Amino acid sequence: MNFFRSIIKPASKEDKNLYYELKELLNFKPIKLSHYKKAFTHRSLKLVDRKGIPINYERLEFLGDAMLGSVMASYLYKKVPKGDEGYLTQMRSKVVSREHLNTLGKDLDLIRFVKSNMAEEHISNNLYGNIFEALIGAIYLDRGYNYCHQFIYEQVILPYVDIERLEGKISSYKGYVIEWCQKNKKKYKFESFEDSGNQNKKYFSVTLSVDDKIMGKGRATSKKKAQEIAAKRVYFAMQTQMEES
Amino acid sequence: MNFFRSIIKPASKEDKNLYYELKELLNFKPIKLSHYKKAFTHRSLKLVDRKGIPINYERLEFLGDAMLGSVMASYLYKKVPKGDEGYLTQMRSKVVSREHLNTLGKDLDLIRFVKSNMAEEHISNNLYGNIFEALIGAIYLDRGYNYCHQFIYEQVILPYVDIERLEGKISSYKGYVIEWCQKNKKKYKFESFEDSGNQNKKYFSVTLSVDDKIMGKGRATSKKKAQEIAAKRVYFAMQTQMEES
Repeated sequence: MNFFRSIIKPASKEDKNLYYELKELLNFKPIKLSHYKKAFTHRSLKLVDRKGIPINYERLEFLGDAMLGSVMASYLYKKVPKGDEGYLTQMRSKVVSREHLNTLGKDLDLIRFVKSNMAEEHISNNLYGNIFEALIGAIYLDRGYNYCHQFIYEQVILPYVDIERLEGKISSYKGYVIEWCQKNKKKYKFESFEDSGNQNKKYFSVTLSVDDKIMGKGRATSKKKAQEIAAKRVYFAMQTQMEES
Repeated sequence: MNFFRSIIKPASKEDKNLYYELKELLNFKPIKLSHYKKAFTHRSLKLVDRKGIPINYERLEFLGDAMLGSVMASYLYKKVPKGDEGYLTQMRSKVVSREHLNTLGKDLDLIRFVKSNMAEEHISNNLYGNIFEALIGAIYLDRGYNYCHQFIYEQVILPYVDIERLEGKISSYKGYVIEWCQKNKKKYKFESFEDSGNQNKKYFSVTLSVDDKIMGKGRATSKKKAQEIAAKRVYFAMQTQMEES
């Protein structure tokens, strides 16, 4: 019942670290750390609670998978009014593909939280995606659907879901924005700096200015990805302005 | 743009009727009737909006399916702490099976809302389930996830989801409660009356009293089903009392 004690007295150094790291990752305050601890516990530790029920991420993965599915369905429904149900199903499958989820788990460096008895060489690629889904399940239990939605929007949809790219319309937002600036005689400038915070993994932050005004920001594990995220934000800002004007 | 007009001026007689029938069905007030109208529109009407996008329930069915999946995942996760992810997946499939959803759509008599150009003999059984899912999608768009959750809980989970029965532990709640009363020397009484309200279909309401105190109520399209729902509520109340004592 370590988990239970940790709710009442959340003062161990390890818990404090977890709390602050999660807060940075999630962009909101976690309340019940035990949910997240479970999401990061691999079955190889063979933990059980006092009723004999295994403590590991597998049930949370089931829950997170369902939440991710419904948030993505809602996003795609609103984002692509012309897409019929076949198209929406296909787009969702692309976004929540095993490969995509593994990339997400890796990018968020979730492995730093994982407790397991496995040797590092036995860690399969799928662990990253599984832990990512389990984290979504933990967020749902801890803070409810709206926080879950927010996290998925910020961490999955904004940086990764490119309807335009999934449809093959745009291959690079950076390329698109540069071309647009050249055509419209605007100055553009990407600036990048290392921004790893407390995390073990290297992170880069990038700003993209158009005519000396910062129009978009991005943060990722490579400079290229961060530039692409910043450019994507500028692209969408441009789309919105065009629709409004 | 009839739908749009109906939001601004929701005063046509047809809209008023729809509003009151929906309010009774949903147990809360619908806000934007256009979502529900779309959920009840069959493609055979060949309606399109001014952008040429088809107006029918098919996209909403995709959305509702995803919402149903996540609400059921959340319910099963909490309800069956011992079930591993394989068990949870299997139970969810049973609940959201095509057959089950068709029964739900029929029980709620959703066909009364449907607008189509099909002859009645061409209506497939699956239409009932499809419309049921589309209705869930419309609820989500109109009132958000929590109302969606509430509707699914009241209309799917309470009357239909019997973990005990799905697992084969209990075949009839009525039988269980009667046996329990006989064993514990309690008087029990089922009382039923017709209660169709404004609906075309016949409905029955049933109360179940134990020692002259009403302990559970049920409403369904047959007396037998309504008795079973009332008995199920009493069964769960008994379980909760036993856990608390």
